[in-house]
Formats: sequence, C-alpha cells, structure tokens
Amino acid sequence: MRKILTTEAQSHQSGKPAGLPANSVGIVEPKSHTFPGPFKLACGRVLDEYTLVYETYGQLNADKSNGVLICHALSGHHHAAGYHSASDKRPGWWDHYIGPGKPIDTNKFFVVALNNLGGCHGSTGPTSINPETGKPWGADFPPLRARDWVHSQAQLADLLGIQQWAAVVGGSLGGMQAMRWSLEYPERLRHCVVIASAMKLSAQNIAFNETARQAITSDPDFRDGRYLEEDTLPRHGLAVARMIGHITYLSDDGLGKKFGRELRSGTFEQGVEELVEFQVQSYLRYQGDSFSGSFDPNTYILMTRALDYFDLAREYGDDPVTAFSHARSKFLLVSFTSDWRFAPERSREIADALMHANVPVTYAEVESPMGHDAFLLPNARYENIFAAYMNNVARELADSVRSEVAQ
Amino acid sequence: MRKILTTEAQSHQSGKPAGLPANSVGIVEPKSHTFPGPFKLACGRVLDEYTLVYETYGQLNADKSNGVLICHALSGHHHAAGYHSASDKRPGWWDHYIGPGKPIDTNKFFVVALNNLGGCHGSTGPTSINPETGKPWGADFPPLRARDWVHSQAQLADLLGIQQWAAVVGGSLGGMQAMRWSLEYPERLRHCVVIASAMKLSAQNIAFNETARQAITSDPDFRDGRYLEEDTLPRHGLAVARMIGHITYLSDDGLGKKFGRELRSGTFEQGVEELVEFQVQSYLRYQGDSFSGSFDPNTYILMTRALDYFDLAREYGDDPVTAFSHARSKFLLVSFTSDWRFAPERSREIADALMHANVPVTYAEVESPMGHDAFLLPNARYENIFAAYMNNVARELADSVRSEVAQ
Repeated sequence: MRKILTTEAQSHQSGKPAGLPANSVGIVEPKSHTFPGPFKLACGRVLDEYTLVYETYGQLNADKSNGVLICHALSGHHHAAGYHSASDKRPGWWDHYIGPGKPIDTNKFFVVALNNLGGCHGSTGPTSINPETGKPWGADFPPLRARDWVHSQAQLADLLGIQQWAAVVGGSLGGMQAMRWSLEYPERLRHCVVIASAMKLSAQNIAFNETARQAITSDPDFRDGRYLEEDTLPRHGLAVARMIGHITYLSDDGLGKKFGRELRSGTFEQGVEELVEFQVQSYLRYQGDSFSGSFDPNTYILMTRALDYFDLAREYGDDPVTAFSHARSKFLLVSFTSDWRFAPERSREIADALMHANVPVTYAEVESPMGHDAFLLPNARYENIFAAYMNNVARELADSVRSEVAQ
Repeated sequence: MRKILTTEAQSHQSGKPAGLPANSVGIVEPKSHTFPGPFKLACGRVLDEYTLVYETYGQLNADKSNGVLICHALSGHHHAAGYHSASDKRPGWWDHYIGPGKPIDTNKFFVVALNNLGGCHGSTGPTSINPETGKPWGADFPPLRARDWVHSQAQLADLLGIQQWAAVVGGSLGGMQAMRWSLEYPERLRHCVVIASAMKLSAQNIAFNETARQAITSDPDFRDGRYLEEDTLPRHGLAVARMIGHITYLSDDGLGKKFGRELRSGTFEQGVEELVEFQVQSYLRYQGDSFSGSFDPNTYILMTRALDYFDLAREYGDDPVTAFSHARSKFLLVSFTSDWRFAPERSREIADALMHANVPVTYAEVESPMGHDAFLLPNARYENIFAAYMNNVARELADSVRSEVAQ
C-alpha cells in the first residue's frame, strides 16, 4: 500500500485529496451509535446499552439492497478501507479488497464495517466503563459468542435500514460470523462469503489460543484483568501472545522464503562470543511489541475465547448438514493451500455440508505460500474469484431491480 | 510405563528389587566426573573445568567396543532408563527403548547416557557456581553449540576407555549431536542413529523457540537471568515456553484424537455464564506448570539457542554432501509421518545427502499420529526397525571379535 501511495503521490483524483490512490475509497470517517438495551447475550448476561463504531463505503441504493457487511477477525476493527486523513500512512486492513473497481466494488455496493462488541477500537468492550461500577469493565466484561456479534450487527443493519444484506463477508473469525448470520437470520442475507475459516477450532487451535491467554494472564501486570484501574499493562504477555498468533498466521514455507536463516546480527564464526540473531526473531519481536502498544489484552482474551467456543453445528445435533439446511443464502468459500491454522480441509468440510444441505456453494482452494494471512494479501487468483463472485452478486441485484421496475 | 509397573508389581526378578518390570535395567545410580580444563568452547570462551553427570546400563565388553552413547534432546538428561529407587514411579525418559531385550539391548550393549554441559540436572550449567564470581552463572553461562556437547562427550568416552562407540544415538536435538559426532570424530563411531531430526531448523522452528525465550526473558522474575541470586524464578514464563514447545511436539491430529473439543468444566448451554474449559487447556497448563517447577529457565534458553544455531553443513560450504563425505559411520534415520516440528522431509534431506556422499544409510518413515513426540513413545514398527538395526550392530561386533580371535 505504501508503494502505491508513493508512486501516485503526485496525482490528484476528483473527490479525493492529493496523494491517495485512484482506487481508494478515499478519506473515511468512523461513525458511532449507541443502541438502547436490554441486549441479552448468549452467556445469559444483559447489557443495558452498547455502542458500535462503524464505517461505510459507497452509496446505499434506493431499495437498500446493496449492503455488504464486513465481519472482522481476531484483531480487526471498523477501519477496513480508505484513510482517516490525507497524511495517513496506511489504509484500512482490507483496503486491497474494498474500493472502486476492487472485488468488493464500492461503485456497486454500500459496504459496512464495524468494530465488534467487546472490541477495543471504540465499540463497547473491556476498556469501556461498566455503568454499575463506574470503572472499566476489564476482565468482568461478559464473555461473547459469535452469535452475540451477529445479533448486534443485525441491530446495526436495522439502524441503517438494511433489511437484507447483499452479502455478509468475513475471513477467519469473520467467516464464522458470516456462517452464523446464515443460520440466525437466514432471510437477511443473499450471499455468505466465508474465507479461510472453519466450522469449529481443532484442539491444536485451542491449544495455541490457550497458550496466548496464559502468556497474558500470567504477566504480573495483568492484575486479574484490572490493569486499567491499576494503571499497569501486561505488555510483555500480550507481545508473546501476538508472537504465538503470528507464527500460526504464516506458513512454514512462507516464513522460510521471507527470512530463511538470514542473520540480523552476530556471526557464526568460531571465536566470536556475540549472540547470533536471526531476522525472523527481530521481526517477531517487532510484531509483538507494536501490537501490545495498540491492542487491549482483555479484548484479545475475549476474542480468542469466542473463537474457541464457536461450533457451528453444536445446537443442530452436531450435524453441519442439519445446521446448513436452515440457510437461505448462497455461499462462496475460499481457502489457501498453505494455511495450517484453518487448513483447506476445514473449508472442504463446510463445502461438503453445504452441498449435502442443497445450499448453492462455490468453493475455491487458492494456491498461496502465505499461510492464513493470505486472506488479507494480494493474490491474483483470489482477487479474480472474489471479484467474479461479487460481480454476480451485483448483477443479481440489478436484475431484481429491473424485474421490480417491469412488474 | 506405570501400567507395566502395576501389572508386574508382584513379580520378583533375580537381581532386581520387587516391583520393577522384568525388562528394566533395574535400579541405576547416576555417576559424576569433573573434567579438568581448559575446555575451549565454540564461542571462544574457556571453561576451567566442568562436571558431567551420567548413567550407564549393561556391561562394557573386554575390547570396549560395545558402547552406545545416548544424546538427549531439549529437556532430557542422563536418566534415560531404569529407576532410581524401588519406589520410583517413573523410569528414565527412554526406558521403552533401552533395556534387556529392548531395541538398545543392554544384554549386548554398554549404554552411556549423560546430562549435557549447560544442563540443569547435575552437569555444569547456568545453575552451577561461576568460579570467577562465586555466584551462579545464570545468563552469563557461555552459549553452547552441539559441537561443544560432542567434544565433552568425547572426553567422557576417553574416561570410560571407549575409543570407538558401537553407535551414537539421538532423537531431535540428540540426533543433531549424533550427526555432529560423525563429522567431528568420524573414526570414533561405527553407527550413527538419527531420529526425528534435521540438518538445521526452519525459520518457523526458530520463531517458536524465540517466542518461548521471549516468554521467559520478559517475565519480571527473570531478572536478566539472575533469578537464582535474587531468589526469584520466572515460573510463568517458563510454563508458557513449555506450552508452546508442547504444542509443537504433538500433531494436530494427535491432539484432536486425545482431546478433541471435550470439555473439562463449564457448559455451552445458553444462559450459563461460567467460562468453558476444554480438556486440552488444562492438560497444557499442567504440562507447563509441572515443567516450570523442575527445569532451569536459563538452560531452556541455552538449549533452544543451540538448536537454532545448529547447521550441519555451514562450515562445509553449505553443502550437506561435502559435510557427510567426512563421515565414516553407517546411518539409521527414522522420521514420523505426523511430525511437523522435524517433518519427514527434513530426514529425507539427510538421507539424500548421505546417499550422494556414498555413506550407507537406512531410512524409515514411520506411520504415527503422535507428532514429534513419537520418537519417545511405543510404536511397533519403530521398535522393530530400531531393534533390527541395533541387532545388526551387535552382530557386527561379535563378527569383528571372532575375526580378531581368528587372526
């Protein structure tokens, strides 16, 4: 993205400040809405009210049928595309896939991206004030499930006047929310786009999440989750947690291609006592440190728990076919060959279940060396498949508008 | 192992206390020897003297040709087989493979197992007193390479009067030492047995090790490695480090078969606020906690660094074939299908290099769902291959004794 910024820094697009790429949604401004409660959560607890922060890109059409909801993953947020200012160095986290002429084409769709409930980017979560105590919620914030997010996203849809999404789209944990949408509100989405996701975590996935949580909670600065009140921050624990996560987002091959065993400092020559440091070490440490300065540890715990708990078919007799027989949307599934966090096998299970439930599904297994992170990164085949599918979604909309006009 | 103890608890074997299995080496006692220095390390620093703790099983034959050296992995030690007392609940870490009638048959071989230099089970290491300061070495203990271990193991061989090992045997990091033996002292071993190992770590391997080290060193109780002096212990950091390691020792499938998504406590029913805990979570926490009570954090750092630094062919123009052209021993290589820490591909690379260097090699890829840990666990095919190979080693010895008598 920075490269694009540099090369097009002199251009000036109509409607966009100088310096932004031509195919960017441009400068965007987060919005915020507080929904009155009571809002009952899956755990049984009730929020009196809650705030969601969100952004929108593109124009909602007259019959409000072109809405696309973006569900974010573990550490995502509402800023999915565009820039917050002309001097902003980085665009939103999915800018490569959202914008004019991009797979989620803002010339055709009205795109809504939000920070989920429990998040730490402005929506109500562990860093918010608990009205009962007047102090930050911290670890007392109720545990959330994907369905809680889906229910709150449905209230956001109501607010925007969107009765039915053209598509609900998400990668990883976001894909789990998209699938849950298809079961909780079958009539409220026409398409469900599930990328690099799974119907439930494996024991290994849970093990990695648990280790990450242990790194956070065993940091003495965690203070039982009351670090905000006590003015501490379990930075080290969160950095280690992020390092663990980061390794699992990348593939063995991808890490090997990116870093190999290249040294950043030190030497292997005999007689030199200095410690050797591999590039991959400093890279990971940087990733951990920068994350721990910008993300809330309690939110990280809450999000990983929601991942662990997600089990699409639990309430359907553990039968995914029974579960998906309630879906009314069409599905696009995408997986990436080197993704070992949510391997292609996990997406094939979803595809199989959908087919057995007679739900229309398009499934693409995309070659990529980038591991789980591939869903965020440029990849020609992925872009083509994604764009082609979303073009069909847009064409369907246009057809339905034409047929309404004709009637 | 405990099961065997229980079922044979009533039997009484001649030469063994009641309660020990018939095919155990029985009660063993660690020995200790302090080697006079100066002992120059690969990093350039020099130890004035050092102590190694070791155990031996079986009898050294008259011409001292039946010695088998066991090299341990990351968290191993000298207690590889047998029991330290009749009430000992668990035998040594490789008891399943060392003993009378077992693959490394103590009726035929004189088996030597040691705690490596830098270890924390009695050999000189970070918990030992630095003679220059009178305080524990801590993080000031010199960084070690596999070759330092091999050189010190050669001094142990000298002490025992063993000019040539019948075999040097090791799994994982132990296999790296065995390979290094074949290049550093080509004439001092007849066979080299390398199990679940690699010629060097991948960037992903290093990344996991670095994350584990970060968990330890960022624990405030680490105190720059001087926790012994300051009477603290980075228990939490070491526990997280061990949890990370443990996940990589097991396979995704293995974890899934062992734990699936079974719950230990809590429930998924709506309306219940209690946190859900999966069995795999409590298992990992237990593994981490029990390890952090018995292992030295500085040793863990030192051992993982030695793993990272190991690169068999570095001094041979990065060409494994050139490296192995110096070897004079025969090789047995074993890998396990579900081992993703040192995948079969890594062993195939060793086998290829050996074949191109015209070194005799037997390579077996063993089906196992147990991941990297498979090298420690019962497995009929692995046992058969291992036993058959070691029987040949013993037969060779007998033949060479006969041919010497005939001359």
